[in-house]
Amino acid sequence: MKEDTIIALATPPGVGAISVLRISGPSSFILTDMLFRGNTKINDSPGYRIYYGDLVDSNENHIDDVLVSVFRAPNSYTGEDSVEISTHGNPLIAQKIIGEFLKLGKIRLAEPGEFTKRAFLNNKIDLSQAEAVADIIHARSEASLRGARNQLDGLLSKKVGKLRESLVNATSFVELELDFAEEDIEFVNTEELLKRIDEIIIEIDSLLETYNIGRVIRDGVNVALVGKPNVGKSSILNYFLKESRSIVSEIPGTTRDIIREEISIEGILFRLYDTAGLRDSDNPIEEEGIKRSREVLRNADIILFIEDTQQGIAQDLLEELMNISSGDKIIRVINKIDLVDKNNSDANVKISAKTGQGMNELLKILVQKAIGMEYYTEKTAIVTNLRHYSCLKKARESLLNARDSVIKKNSGEFISVDLRNASISLGEIIGEVTTDDILNNIFMKFCIGK
Amino acid sequence: MKEDTIIALATPPGVGAISVLRISGPSSFILTDMLFRGNTKINDSPGYRIYYGDLVDSNENHIDDVLVSVFRAPNSYTGEDSVEISTHGNPLIAQKIIGEFLKLGKIRLAEPGEFTKRAFLNNKIDLSQAEAVADIIHARSEASLRGARNQLDGLLSKKVGKLRESLVNATSFVELELDFAEEDIEFVNTEELLKRIDEIIIEIDSLLETYNIGRVIRDGVNVALVGKPNVGKSSILNYFLKESRSIVSEIPGTTRDIIREEISIEGILFRLYDTAGLRDSDNPIEEEGIKRSREVLRNADIILFIEDTQQGIAQDLLEELMNISSGDKIIRVINKIDLVDKNNSDANVKISAKTGQGMNELLKILVQKAIGMEYYTEKTAIVTNLRHYSCLKKARESLLNARDSVIKKNSGEFISVDLRNASISLGEIIGEVTTDDILNNIFMKFCIGK
Repeated sequence: MKEDTIIALATPPGVGAISVLRISGPSSFILTDMLFRGNTKINDSPGYRIYYGDLVDSNENHIDDVLVSVFRAPNSYTGEDSVEISTHGNPLIAQKIIGEFLKLGKIRLAEPGEFTKRAFLNNKIDLSQAEAVADIIHARSEASLRGARNQLDGLLSKKVGKLRESLVNATSFVELELDFAEEDIEFVNTEELLKRIDEIIIEIDSLLETYNIGRVIRDGVNVALVGKPNVGKSSILNYFLKESRSIVSEIPGTTRDIIREEISIEGILFRLYDTAGLRDSDNPIEEEGIKRSREVLRNADIILFIEDTQQGIAQDLLEELMNISSGDKIIRVINKIDLVDKNNSDANVKISAKTGQGMNELLKILVQKAIGMEYYTEKTAIVTNLRHYSCLKKARESLLNARDSVIKKNSGEFISVDLRNASISLGEIIGEVTTDDILNNIFMKFCIGK
Repeated sequence: MKEDTIIALATPPGVGAISVLRISGPSSFILTDMLFRGNTKINDSPGYRIYYGDLVDSNENHIDDVLVSVFRAPNSYTGEDSVEISTHGNPLIAQKIIGEFLKLGKIRLAEPGEFTKRAFLNNKIDLSQAEAVADIIHARSEASLRGARNQLDGLLSKKVGKLRESLVNATSFVELELDFAEEDIEFVNTEELLKRIDEIIIEIDSLLETYNIGRVIRDGVNVALVGKPNVGKSSILNYFLKESRSIVSEIPGTTRDIIREEISIEGILFRLYDTAGLRDSDNPIEEEGIKRSREVLRNADIILFIEDTQQGIAQDLLEELMNISSGDKIIRVINKIDLVDKNNSDANVKISAKTGQGMNELLKILVQKAIGMEYYTEKTAIVTNLRHYSCLKKARESLLNARDSVIKKNSGEFISVDLRNASISLGEIIGEVTTDDILNNIFMKFCIGK
């Protein structure tokens, strides 16, 4: 596969000032020279150079004036010879140029994620970094961007790599002992081995714990607003929108009639859903609204239960809510304290969406509820990816089995197999151990051109 | 204005493998050096070089790893120092980086078309070429792309420039004679002057004539399909779609319920509209359909009037059609000649959408009807732009006035003023004579980043 030369549009499809085509593989330069008319042959150029000239079709008809950027192996994104062609930003031009290249033969359209896959296969990045590239491109909030950035910078890889090294090390002692089994030499101190295994389990546990934050950072948080009519749900929504530093753009394909708004607080994406009534009704239209509200509540990570000082406690609504959802998701909010400020010990926070009083505290509580009480700094390795989470879980299980065997004084062969399995599971995260299936599954989700 | 440094996203908005930001103006390099961490200072770099490194925020936090391309004045698109920054293709990253640049001060967001406007102001391209850039980006068919390409390559500019030179030349003789009026020296031979003016008028006329083709090439052709039920309109539509070499992508914002399909024949964009009945009706829904059909017919450049060999001549429908539309737009098509092939001398073409018989001829007739009988080669200057058309019209009028004055032996001053006006009108096309209003009007229509 690495012998092929591939081409794809690398910029978003659509109209803009410029589009960029990317070509990678051994024939990149010769093929470009067949269609590019500039002062220099691309094949003779050093890397990191740009050339201006005309791109022509097979009849020497001028298609567009372009800039060609040259990257020589191994100093390119893919690690191969590659070329970027910058054209006027009309999809027809990109389409036409790709067509002319394909006509030349010895080049084909890139598969999704194939440029990044090649970067992985050529050891420019490891597998978790390759996955971070897709996360960076699809990140929808600053926090998720930072999380993916950390992963691309190798924070997770380094951590996992270290654990794996420690594990391989322990395994080799166990296996050495097996080799000399008949001579009854003890290479491994049982206590030390247990300590080593426990240390690794603790480290894996702390990584696994980051997954909850990681998921929030990566995918955002669903927040449902529940309350009787006129408790001020709209005012609270509007206040959030005003405070949100960056309103995230629309997700393609979302049903806009139930998603209300997306806001970003401290870089975390919060999706705010309004809910209609919860009580059963005979009116079919209302019934539909209630069905939707229940759906929203089921998918909510956090529920803002809003009461107001004038209407007072909505015990009936709260009870209905508790039937649908678990209590620890709920933040109880008392609104309109600018009007009456009664004592209410049940509320988590008292606010006035009108004056802004208490709203900062509400935001703080939201963020805390979202990422838990733990703090993560920008330099912490966090697990955001379900595949990595599963690999860590599997490694943990194998380590527990190994631990069990050590305690039960089972044969070293059992211990060795479990330690090796744990090591394989960790290796799968960074791609030191991998299969075509895993790779295909990962890169299938990329866009073409990356 | 040219002292400012400007920044904008140059690639289409949205998610892709890479995005490109463009910076242009005197501070491009220093500003980039403030946020870019690579091996070399951009300010020290020669042009046409690429650097890989990190882009950081004001706290040295890593935003993204980027490629920076360096272009030194005057060898850049704008003619100024400029830089292109290629990032991962997430709109949040581009947004964040633009934000960090704006924080530095001495740089602002680019206005629509401002990069191209600067290219014009720095004499990299003339005005008609600048307009061609926008046409290239928004071209929706191969023919319109070729037309805009010709214009950007300067075909129209050269032609207009030559006419203007010839005109300026004639004017100077007329004015020289005015200077020496008292001495009664004749510098200008009246007959030769008339001949010169006539030559220019003929040239302008031939340019004006290209506008019809130009408009078709640029904007495409509206084709309405009219016929009684079951004459095979859908089969004809489907046949066209299958034959069309490239189906053009959807226009954003078009009312899909009346546009049926867009096809490209010989690179020209044909928009095919189906029509419902034409006869008045009492049913309000049918009435709406009839209203729409009439609207479609009013906007149609070509009407395919389809009859079939079985139902025979639809004289009543044809008569209704003639009430709404002019006869020379109509192509009469007889369908289903695979069933019965009766002689019918009224038809322009006889086809079978089922077997494909006659369809090539229909396509040929469509293309001929669209661009007239005239042929244009790829190297012909064509007028596609209404502004250019109006300037040519104005120049022609001034020339006719001048011609009149020459014949009537009016004072040379009249002749001189008219010749000068003609020359100004021509100069407006290529931007040798221009006003801020004209410029603003032109560049306002560009996208930001171009």
